[in-house]
Amino acid sequence: MTPTSRGAPEFELIERIRRRAAARDDVVLGIGDDAAIVQVPAGRQLVIAADTINRGVHFPDNTAPADIGWKALAVNLSDLAAMGAEPAWCTLSLSLPTGDAAWVDAFLDGFLDLAAQHHVALIGGDTTRGPLSVSVTVHGFVEPGRALRRSGACVGDDVWVTGTLGDAAGALTQWRGGAVVHPLLRSRLDRPAPRVATGALITAVAHAGVDVSDGLLADLQHVCVASGIGGEIDLEALPASAALIAAFDPQRRSALQATGGDDYELCFTAPATAREAIARIAVETGTPITRIGRITAGHGVRALHADGSEWIAPSAGFVHFA
Amino acid sequence: MTPTSRGAPEFELIERIRRRAAARDDVVLGIGDDAAIVQVPAGRQLVIAADTINRGVHFPDNTAPADIGWKALAVNLSDLAAMGAEPAWCTLSLSLPTGDAAWVDAFLDGFLDLAAQHHVALIGGDTTRGPLSVSVTVHGFVEPGRALRRSGACVGDDVWVTGTLGDAAGALTQWRGGAVVHPLLRSRLDRPAPRVATGALITAVAHAGVDVSDGLLADLQHVCVASGIGGEIDLEALPASAALIAAFDPQRRSALQATGGDDYELCFTAPATAREAIARIAVETGTPITRIGRITAGHGVRALHADGSEWIAPSAGFVHFA
Repeated sequence: MTPTSRGAPEFELIERIRRRAAARDDVVLGIGDDAAIVQVPAGRQLVIAADTINRGVHFPDNTAPADIGWKALAVNLSDLAAMGAEPAWCTLSLSLPTGDAAWVDAFLDGFLDLAAQHHVALIGGDTTRGPLSVSVTVHGFVEPGRALRRSGACVGDDVWVTGTLGDAAGALTQWRGGAVVHPLLRSRLDRPAPRVATGALITAVAHAGVDVSDGLLADLQHVCVASGIGGEIDLEALPASAALIAAFDPQRRSALQATGGDDYELCFTAPATAREAIARIAVETGTPITRIGRITAGHGVRALHADGSEWIAPSAGFVHFA
Repeated sequence: MTPTSRGAPEFELIERIRRRAAARDDVVLGIGDDAAIVQVPAGRQLVIAADTINRGVHFPDNTAPADIGWKALAVNLSDLAAMGAEPAWCTLSLSLPTGDAAWVDAFLDGFLDLAAQHHVALIGGDTTRGPLSVSVTVHGFVEPGRALRRSGACVGDDVWVTGTLGDAAGALTQWRGGAVVHPLLRSRLDRPAPRVATGALITAVAHAGVDVSDGLLADLQHVCVASGIGGEIDLEALPASAALIAAFDPQRRSALQATGGDDYELCFTAPATAREAIARIAVETGTPITRIGRITAGHGVRALHADGSEWIAPSAGFVHFA
């Protein structure tokens, strides 16, 4: 962040944000009062997720303001996607070292671009002075009983994942190592695409789901603990982008795919009878969905090589407090 | 914040928080999945507010963790109170320099104490590594059309305020000046009492309302701008605590009352016909409510001495980005 001015008052920043916020018919009162008022559709449950991203922890220092805006909303929409929820509204709490209006405008470019793609209305929040930190709370809807939880996985389920794995961690690895960062990998780190449409469709066939934010093994472990079962991942089956394959040797690539965080793909389990339906959902949403393993009795998640030998992860995933 | 350990992983901190979160019948799924699921009562609108407090900006460095927890929720509940909404749920995004479990436990003591007083369930959020910052989003209910907005003030309305003004700013002034801080003033800074019960009752008679967070004149100005009218405040009518009267001379006290932030009282306007009803609400809630001025034609807020001469504020209120 490079402040270009000493700072605008909070009222002015909020007014800038208010002017650009989109409308929705179910927003009774948006930005500008002590709180917002909204109307949840009859017969729907409300799904709420809150996630924060901090400079230097969740994004590199040189991340563009528009990318920070995009990512702050994307990581939250990814949580809704993992529940199979339809996004509706969000609030934004923005802590800034200075009230740099140009920076806020650029931040909003990315934030509101993604919001518009998912018909999400920004309805409130605040701006405060402090180290750069972005807290977002998102709200969406599900039909009662239809949300995809972590706790429903069954022994014998297939394990699936959307898109490709390891790209964001690959970009971070290159950046931290001082290497040239591949633009496709960097775009996966900066502008993750929350799998909202896929999440909404797989609720019809999946038993359990989670988004891959801490790393595949760590996140699948959450599902296994919540479901009281175990899991096996076929390491060589994990989907990889061409950019990742070109940039890393197979061993480093596997580690990035299995344990790298920040991909924001969906990992879910479903019975074998759902394979055809899942193939159709992949076609319908234009999102690759790959079968990568199975749910087993017992506990814990093991990653296996093609010859059946177990792969030992160098780390248990991306841990924020290390 | 004084970390006593190098830090617990995020999963452990969230588990600590989850174990202590209260239940509500309308929480379908609480902490522990990708998102929470809740049920808004039929026939009610949802009211949402989000506010962040940062160390050194919104509370002094020496604030106790339990007081930080209390205040983070209080400032949000105050926004619901200003809308006349009934609180229900909240999310908590906690950025911490280290994952100090003992600090988090103490923080939760204050946060959950206030939550229990208002039957608020903590349903989600996250913990991240970063400078100390607390973002809370609160959710409550109102009957359709019953929320108290900033925009309904009418010419001829009385202007009212709950409790006493200037105490929090008085504590900050003493603390910044290196003086001994009066414990009653300090408690008003650290543990503001959101006027939830009063807010819910005054919606029946008030035309417009706001909570006093930026300072009385600044917050009443928000009401006047939103309502397209002006206001007059009788400086000598502003309610003061005995502690504030004892600690500051009349001139400094008036400045603190008129422009000091962080009191989290409610300021509202109501027609003269509502005076008896307001007196009954004050008795019923045990909260003093004082008539301090009137809504006028024109625009802008003026503070007047008893002789009718205008008082010129040394500042327009507490501005976060200065």
